[in-house]
Amino acid sequence: MYRPEIKVLDCTIRDGGLINDCQFDDKFVRAVYQACSAAGVDYIELGYQADKKFFSPDKYGRPKFCEEDYLRRIIDGIESKSKISTMIDIGRVDLAQIKPKSESVVDMIRVACYVKDVDKAIYHVKACADKGYETTVNIMAISTALMPDLEEGLAQLANSPVKAVYVVDSYGALFSEQIHFLVTKALKYLQPKGIEVGIHTHNNQQLGFANTIEAIRKGANFLDATIFGIGRGPGNCPLELLLSFLKNPQFKLDSILEAIEKEMLPLREKIEWGYIIPYMITGILNQHPRSAIALRAGQDKDKYSQFYRNLLNDIEIS
Amino acid sequence: MYRPEIKVLDCTIRDGGLINDCQFDDKFVRAVYQACSAAGVDYIELGYQADKKFFSPDKYGRPKFCEEDYLRRIIDGIESKSKISTMIDIGRVDLAQIKPKSESVVDMIRVACYVKDVDKAIYHVKACADKGYETTVNIMAISTALMPDLEEGLAQLANSPVKAVYVVDSYGALFSEQIHFLVTKALKYLQPKGIEVGIHTHNNQQLGFANTIEAIRKGANFLDATIFGIGRGPGNCPLELLLSFLKNPQFKLDSILEAIEKEMLPLREKIEWGYIIPYMITGILNQHPRSAIALRAGQDKDKYSQFYRNLLNDIEIS
Repeated sequence: MYRPEIKVLDCTIRDGGLINDCQFDDKFVRAVYQACSAAGVDYIELGYQADKKFFSPDKYGRPKFCEEDYLRRIIDGIESKSKISTMIDIGRVDLAQIKPKSESVVDMIRVACYVKDVDKAIYHVKACADKGYETTVNIMAISTALMPDLEEGLAQLANSPVKAVYVVDSYGALFSEQIHFLVTKALKYLQPKGIEVGIHTHNNQQLGFANTIEAIRKGANFLDATIFGIGRGPGNCPLELLLSFLKNPQFKLDSILEAIEKEMLPLREKIEWGYIIPYMITGILNQHPRSAIALRAGQDKDKYSQFYRNLLNDIEIS
Repeated sequence: MYRPEIKVLDCTIRDGGLINDCQFDDKFVRAVYQACSAAGVDYIELGYQADKKFFSPDKYGRPKFCEEDYLRRIIDGIESKSKISTMIDIGRVDLAQIKPKSESVVDMIRVACYVKDVDKAIYHVKACADKGYETTVNIMAISTALMPDLEEGLAQLANSPVKAVYVVDSYGALFSEQIHFLVTKALKYLQPKGIEVGIHTHNNQQLGFANTIEAIRKGANFLDATIFGIGRGPGNCPLELLLSFLKNPQFKLDSILEAIEKEMLPLREKIEWGYIIPYMITGILNQHPRSAIALRAGQDKDKYSQFYRNLLNDIEIS
């Protein structure tokens, strides 16, 4: 699959940081930045620009805040043509603290929101665009969005300065037909305004890579992935599979395989992600993974059938 | 997805047996048979009917041979509406030793072959059909089949007593468009004769489940899967995901989740399967996994980038 408009964004550090409160040391972050740069990835997301009023630096690692001095230290001396992105969460960012683009190594700021918060997202997009950044809006939990709300949100986004709008399958609940539907729907509103559609999948049902491919086939050009699929719970679309599928000569696999070998295998001894049944269960039930996260933190972490029955009972009650 | 013609076949024991020379004890095999029966799976494949002249019982476990007394011991006392299948490999079976269906608990015999061996497969199919069995032909390594050979093979199979012909992605190399093409092609030849098309995927690129869905969408009705995706290397389409997707009230998930919890987790401590990078690499290169199997058995089992470079060099030489 080759289309010059396609942009691959690695969010290993940002999405992986959801597992361990962004407690990645500089050596690890530099290794990821180096590997993705060598692989020809278009954007590398190095973390969040979160407000320290809401998140304590005692608990969260440096990628949670992506301060300018930190980012410059990370990229120092590493050859790269990749752009840098960060993510902001509505209500957990102090927009006044975001420097003008001219004073920052960050190229793109991505605004994560639920469909109900598109108005707020557009406010953030405008603030960041005014400072000179490329921007995206990432519509989370889109598998639970009501269609009129989604259409209204897309119509508003079509009239904003956003560069790309992401379909985000936060719950890992979608199948290919639904991906086709949502990407086509988003393009209908956004394409006439030159705004791209992006795809960010979760791997609860082992469909992260497959759904990314299906989104590409329908016209999505901004593609999120992480090395070895790292991400909270089941993780994300694996970058190594995506680069291999795209077959664009811009992309090289070697450095990513090396990063898996040297950085990801030791990390996975310490923190878990991948095909883990409780997350598969929240995925098939189109639910937030919080119940699975809680289960995995406790003694009953492998009581799968009991967990499934409990969730079904919860649904019946509600 | 509900279609009354759809039949789900669990090949946990048979395909899983490729990892450990079928060294499953009776307790494990009975647990799988019980779980699949309770889940409403249509066919349960309990192993191979291999010839002991070719495979020593000193090395291989009982599911390699599926002798009648063994099978009866396995299913004894377990309530089940599921049919039983076994697999035979051309040249490694003594057809004379296969009992008439009236003397066996086996319902279906599946013949595995490469496209070049379709003639021989049909010979085996006829022999088994004459003895009263349902039969299938499973065309392995179909991602390497040349189209004229495949079309000729399908045309011959259309005039045989076979019940279903499987598209088998042995190398885990196929994407959805190729699955669409192959299933549609097979149906063109087979559907007019009332012969079903089946799908058997491998998970090298995390596409086992996705490709099974895509085959279903195009009309495949015989679906292979294994509990927790067990199978050599990357494994197969996970049964728990498939049953959940099908949403047919015939299928129940609970017993499968319980089998994962009680049987599969302890087993995976001893033998490996799943998303393992060397198998991902043979998958993207559309190669037999033998090089990955060899790598994983040695000291360099996690030298991914070197393995990748070596395989690329091999391709260049040939």
